[in-house]
Amino acid sequence: MSKRMLTTVFAALITAAFLHLPLADAGEALPSWREGKAKQSIIDFVSQVARKGSPDFVAPEERVAVFDNDGTLWSERPIYFQLLFALDRVKALAPKHPEWKGKEPFASLLKGDVAAALAGGEKAILEIVMSTHAGMTTTAFEKIVKDWIATARHPKTGKRYTEMVFQPMLELLVFLRANGFKTFIVSGGGIEFMRPWAEAVYGIPPEQVVGSSIKTKFEMRADGPVLVRLPEVNFIDDKEGKPVGINAHIGRRPIAAFGNSDGDLQMLQWTTAGKAPRFGLLVHHTDAEREWAYDRKSHVGKLDKALDEAAVKGWTVVDMKQDWKVIYPPVN
Amino acid sequence: MSKRMLTTVFAALITAAFLHLPLADAGEALPSWREGKAKQSIIDFVSQVARKGSPDFVAPEERVAVFDNDGTLWSERPIYFQLLFALDRVKALAPKHPEWKGKEPFASLLKGDVAAALAGGEKAILEIVMSTHAGMTTTAFEKIVKDWIATARHPKTGKRYTEMVFQPMLELLVFLRANGFKTFIVSGGGIEFMRPWAEAVYGIPPEQVVGSSIKTKFEMRADGPVLVRLPEVNFIDDKEGKPVGINAHIGRRPIAAFGNSDGDLQMLQWTTAGKAPRFGLLVHHTDAEREWAYDRKSHVGKLDKALDEAAVKGWTVVDMKQDWKVIYPPVN
Repeated sequence: MSKRMLTTVFAALITAAFLHLPLADAGEALPSWREGKAKQSIIDFVSQVARKGSPDFVAPEERVAVFDNDGTLWSERPIYFQLLFALDRVKALAPKHPEWKGKEPFASLLKGDVAAALAGGEKAILEIVMSTHAGMTTTAFEKIVKDWIATARHPKTGKRYTEMVFQPMLELLVFLRANGFKTFIVSGGGIEFMRPWAEAVYGIPPEQVVGSSIKTKFEMRADGPVLVRLPEVNFIDDKEGKPVGINAHIGRRPIAAFGNSDGDLQMLQWTTAGKAPRFGLLVHHTDAEREWAYDRKSHVGKLDKALDEAAVKGWTVVDMKQDWKVIYPPVN
Repeated sequence: MSKRMLTTVFAALITAAFLHLPLADAGEALPSWREGKAKQSIIDFVSQVARKGSPDFVAPEERVAVFDNDGTLWSERPIYFQLLFALDRVKALAPKHPEWKGKEPFASLLKGDVAAALAGGEKAILEIVMSTHAGMTTTAFEKIVKDWIATARHPKTGKRYTEMVFQPMLELLVFLRANGFKTFIVSGGGIEFMRPWAEAVYGIPPEQVVGSSIKTKFEMRADGPVLVRLPEVNFIDDKEGKPVGINAHIGRRPIAAFGNSDGDLQMLQWTTAGKAPRFGLLVHHTDAEREWAYDRKSHVGKLDKALDEAAVKGWTVVDMKQDWKVIYPPVN
């Protein structure tokens, strides 16, 4: 048997192994999920689409699952972690911007008054983001993000941000991929803020990360070509933007969508409006002790309309306090 | 041994099989390529990056190869096939647009005078594209493209357009994927014009197709959510746009790039400026008998600056007439 034939045989065997993956293994695969409706709904859906012979079997190339990031794969309190990154960058860049001392929202930020800075609303946030996310090459920005994510710590927990990812969701990502799913992030967060660490933390490669973006420009410099990040919004991957982003980057309708807020509503609508079987899931933050508890009245991660629609549409709602044995991965 | 362990073992074996793929097999894998510098340069590069133990070994996840479409994977004469699609659509839609009889570029088109219609330059082309590519849902457009590609025939060869793909390039795509590469299209053509058939024809799934696009808009209708195609340019994936598109969709720098015209120059510059080993290749259309012969003076697929730069940078230039035993796949 030639090596090429061997390869083909192995490919067939590995496919067969996936297709016949005994769903009883799901318990083993999702150890941080308590037995209950939420866990069972995941296992039932995966069984339905991935088990050979199932009447609702879905071809592997169509097994696309999309995940929001903030509040779905990692925490988002007290404010989105990318905004904490931007605030740290303002401090780091302040020596080069003496004018910031007399200019909002920077003046308040540099005095440590985040609330006053953010009182300027979207305009203030946009100014903070553009002044910290644009003006450098894509390569330089990637290094800035990598350095920050490797060292910065959360103001309340003292953990690194990548230690504040949800262990049950990490297990879910692995479980889906083991059953032939391709997993994507579809986040309102910055695409180039997530890509530098998403592969190591979530096992999701850069080409499967969809997010908000600013424009970039190709420039030929003396030492070679670069892409420069411009202070101009390119795309906002939130709310109605999520199905647009999914179509632009993935080009097929997902069969499963995972979110936690009204920003994910249209993504779940778009996903579950496809021909059955489809799966929608919302993470409901109900655990004030181990994480945070918030929903309809929250400024960050507001979950109101989507929670109502989940009841009507039969989407799974994860009760974080009840359904998850642990929140974060064990610290080594 | 549990099924999960078996899966792991198979995964390891299949990886090992790829890594040790004997490069002598390349001759067998590229049967439509004549022995010579072009073919050898491909085999040498793949050996260099994919053979375990090679000092220039590249991890599989970094083995990204990008391909232009028009003129690189299929023909582009007498004009880009997508433009022929647009012209057919003008004819099909004409009964609904009586005003077109008195309005350029439509009036000339409907009289069969393509040259007069295109004399209006980019503005005329944009009008033709928007009137035929926008206004419907993404789902409806996908069906229009699929119906056309299944039935339309090339004015000169009488072949279906998907029969005018280059057999040697199909073999190259397979050869690269067998050696752990992920293959992407990065084309100036419309992303939603290519996706409906790229998977069947090239083995490239929708999420690995990058192209030009118009904007889309999410709408909730009585019978469910749709994405509507708007008559507004979103992104032009050509020239300086190609590295931008690569960064937006793939998020890492390719290690190999394949093109045929000056529209691919920046893509090859961006790819080959990365840390070695990198590979650039241009298809030079030199075969007036079996396909077309054109380069520096051509309006479609102009190859001038990139041809000069290939000599300086050491990119492979395929002489279609000399290097390819066959052009198109055998017709069944």
